[in-house]
Amino acid sequence: MIRFKNGLVMDMKESCAPEKKEVWTDGDRIIFVGVPTDEQLKSAVFEREIDLNGGLLMPSFKNAHTHSAMTFLRSYADDLPLQSWLFDQVFPMEAKLKGEDIYWFTKLAILEYLSSGMTASFDMYFELDDYFKANVESGFRTVMCGAVSGSADNAKRLEENYLKFNGADPLVSFRLGFHAEYTAERGLLEAVADLARKYKAPVCTHISETRSEVQGCIDKYGMTPPALFSSLGIFDYGGTGFHCVHFSDEDIELFKAHGVSAVTCPASNAKLASGIAPLTKFIDRGVTLGVGTDGAASNNCLDMFREMFLMTALQKIKLEDASALPADKVLTAATKGSALAMGLPDCDCIAEGKQADLVVLDLDKPNMRPFNNIPKNIVYSGSKQNVKLTMCAGRVLYEDGKYFIGEDVSRIYARCEELAEALKH
Amino acid sequence: MIRFKNGLVMDMKESCAPEKKEVWTDGDRIIFVGVPTDEQLKSAVFEREIDLNGGLLMPSFKNAHTHSAMTFLRSYADDLPLQSWLFDQVFPMEAKLKGEDIYWFTKLAILEYLSSGMTASFDMYFELDDYFKANVESGFRTVMCGAVSGSADNAKRLEENYLKFNGADPLVSFRLGFHAEYTAERGLLEAVADLARKYKAPVCTHISETRSEVQGCIDKYGMTPPALFSSLGIFDYGGTGFHCVHFSDEDIELFKAHGVSAVTCPASNAKLASGIAPLTKFIDRGVTLGVGTDGAASNNCLDMFREMFLMTALQKIKLEDASALPADKVLTAATKGSALAMGLPDCDCIAEGKQADLVVLDLDKPNMRPFNNIPKNIVYSGSKQNVKLTMCAGRVLYEDGKYFIGEDVSRIYARCEELAEALKH
Repeated sequence: MIRFKNGLVMDMKESCAPEKKEVWTDGDRIIFVGVPTDEQLKSAVFEREIDLNGGLLMPSFKNAHTHSAMTFLRSYADDLPLQSWLFDQVFPMEAKLKGEDIYWFTKLAILEYLSSGMTASFDMYFELDDYFKANVESGFRTVMCGAVSGSADNAKRLEENYLKFNGADPLVSFRLGFHAEYTAERGLLEAVADLARKYKAPVCTHISETRSEVQGCIDKYGMTPPALFSSLGIFDYGGTGFHCVHFSDEDIELFKAHGVSAVTCPASNAKLASGIAPLTKFIDRGVTLGVGTDGAASNNCLDMFREMFLMTALQKIKLEDASALPADKVLTAATKGSALAMGLPDCDCIAEGKQADLVVLDLDKPNMRPFNNIPKNIVYSGSKQNVKLTMCAGRVLYEDGKYFIGEDVSRIYARCEELAEALKH
Repeated sequence: MIRFKNGLVMDMKESCAPEKKEVWTDGDRIIFVGVPTDEQLKSAVFEREIDLNGGLLMPSFKNAHTHSAMTFLRSYADDLPLQSWLFDQVFPMEAKLKGEDIYWFTKLAILEYLSSGMTASFDMYFELDDYFKANVESGFRTVMCGAVSGSADNAKRLEENYLKFNGADPLVSFRLGFHAEYTAERGLLEAVADLARKYKAPVCTHISETRSEVQGCIDKYGMTPPALFSSLGIFDYGGTGFHCVHFSDEDIELFKAHGVSAVTCPASNAKLASGIAPLTKFIDRGVTLGVGTDGAASNNCLDMFREMFLMTALQKIKLEDASALPADKVLTAATKGSALAMGLPDCDCIAEGKQADLVVLDLDKPNMRPFNNIPKNIVYSGSKQNVKLTMCAGRVLYEDGKYFIGEDVSRIYARCEELAEALKH
C-alpha cells in the first residue's frame, strides 16, 4: 500500500474543491480516501508513505487525442496550412517509418506526457505491435484507436487489431476507428459501420477539423461528416470525434443523440489555423467533452496545462465573453471528460475502487501563490513546473523530474535523434 | 569572470541559429563571445565555469508590460469582462494596498519571472519606494513606468518620480507614463505632453486595449487614442504603447511615424476577451514589437513561454493562416523587441560589451527533442521546465529551481499569503 498524506485532495467526483484528506492505494487501485482513524492507521502496512508537504493530489490528466510517435516531426515542418502540411510533409515522412522508429518515438512522447501529469493516451497510429510494446514496457496506459483509411479491404485489419489488442494487457484497450472521411472510401465507412454493429462497439475518427474538410464532405455526400457517419450507422454504439472544430448545432445534436464524445485539440487547431471549436455548446448540450494534445508535429508540445489554458482563452476570444468556459469545466474535461471519451470510466476521479491514476502538483511554486483559488490557479497559471509526481495504475512513473519507466532517458533521447536524422535521408 | 562552456549559443544579434560557442561575463557585462584560443584560456581567471552540458545560452526574456504586485489578485476575480473586472474588483482591492504589500507581492512576481527566464520588467504601479526596494534587493532589472491618472495636478508627482528614480540604481530606470486615456483628464494628457517636451522623453501608456475604450475616445475626442496622443504631442519623443489590440492601419502609421513601440499581451487580451492584436501588421510596418505578461490578475501566470506560443497561435487563428508570425519573429520580440521597447538597448542580444542578461535552457527534456529546429522547439514547445539558469546583470538569480535573490522563498510565500488574506477583510 502507498499512502499520500499531509496535503490537499481534489477528487473531481463532483466538484473541484480541494480538501485535507489522505489517499491510499494498493496495487493498481485506490483503496481509501478520507481522514483515517488511529485504528485504521495502526492496522495499515504501507510500503511507502508520500508526504505531500501541502501539495495537491488530483486525478491525472488523460490525453484524449494524440499520435504519440509523431514526436519525430516536432518543429520539422511548421508554419504550413493543414492540407499541405499533412499531404506534402507528414504523410511522406510517415511512409518511411518502421516499427523500431515507432517504438522509440512513442517512448519519447510518454516521457513528455508524464512530465505534464498525463497517465493515458488515446492514440491513433500504426505499427501497433511496437507501439503496444512501448506503452506496456513503460507502465503507461493507452487506448489504441484504429486508423484505417482507403478501401473497404482495410476493415479486415481493423477487426484483427480489435480482437488482438483488447484484453492483451490490463493497461491497453483498442477501439474501432478510421482516419477521417477525406481519407476513406465510402466502402470502408460502410465496413466500419458493419464492425460497429457486429461488436456493438463505439467508433472513433478525426471529424470536421477544417472548414475545407466539411465542405468537401458536403460536396461529395450532401451532408456534414457527423450527418454522414450517423446515416451510415457508424455511431450506432456511440464513439468519439477528434477535433470537432466546424460543428453546426445540428452536428452537435447528432453527437448528443448517439452518445458520441467530442475531443478538442485547441493548440493544434490554433497552430494549423483550423479554427476554434464551439466548446461551450458541446458542454451546454450535455455532450461529453475531452481534450487532447494531438501529435507533436502540430502542437508542438504535449502539455495538458497549455491545452487547458487554451480551451478557455480561445472560447473567451471566440465568444467575446471573458466569463466563457470557467476553470472547473476545463478541469473536468481534462480529467473525467477525457477518461469517459476514452472508455476509461475507472480512471475518471479519485474514489475508492477506482484506478490509481494520479498526479501530485507542487503548490510551492510562485505561479501557484497566493491560494485565492487553487483550481483556477491550475487552469490559468499551472505549468509542467508544478508536476511533482505522476502515478499510473498505482505505479510512480515520474517524480521530481526523474522517470521510472524501465528505460534510461538519455538512451531514449539518443535513439530518437539518430532515428529522426536517418528518416530525413 | 564567469565562463559558459560546452553548449550552444543563440546570440539573437541577427539570427536565431544556435552555434557552438562560449560566453564569458565579467561584472555585469558580456566580455567574450566565440571559440577561445588556448592562449585566451590560459590567461583567463574564472571565478566559476558553468558547464552547459549541451544546453542553450540565449538572451534572457524581457517582460515589456506588467504590474508585478498584482500577484495578490491571481485567480481572485476571473471570468469577468474587463471594465467590471477593473472597476468593481481590481481598483477597490488596489485602493487598500500599502507599501509593505507592494514589496512582498513584487518579490513573488520576481520569483516567477526568473523561473521563466525573464530578467527585466516594464512595470506600471504605485508605492514606488517599496517597489524599487523589492527589485534592487533582488538584483532584478526594472523599468518603472509612470502610471498617473485623473487631473493635471498629478503630473507633478510624475515629474518628481522621473527625477528621483532615474539614476537611483544601475538596475533601475523610470519612464514617463500615464495609466490610460479613459482614466486621464485632458489636462493631465496635456501636462504629460509638456513633460515629454521638457525632458525630450518617451511616454508610455495602456492604449486601445478594448473596443469600448477606442469607441469611448472617439466619442469624446473624435479620434482614436493613438491619434489623440499624437495630436497632443505626447509621442513627440517616442514612447511605448501597451496592449495595442484595436489598432487601425492609420494608428499603426502614427506609431511608425513617432517611433513608438508596441507591446502585446496576448494571454491577458485573450483571458479578458479583449481581442487579438494585429501583430504581423506592426512587424511588417517596421514598428518595434515587444511582449509582456500583463499583471497576474489578468493572465494569470507570468510565463514568457505561454506568451510566445500565444503570439503566433492567435495570429494564425486571426489571419486563418498557419504560416503567420513564424518562430524567429516571436523570439525576436521576446528578447530584442521587448528590450528596445523598454529603453534597454544594452540588454537586447549576446555580444561583447552588452549587459549579461542571459538564460540557459535545458535541452535534455522531452519537449525539446529531437533537434529538428531548436528556435521552433523553444517557441512552440518550450516551458518553464526548460529554464535551467537565469542571470541578470552578471549575477545568477535562479538555477536548478533555486533562487538567489537574498530572501528565503518560503518567507515570501508565507508573507504573501498573510497579506493577501488580510486585504480581503
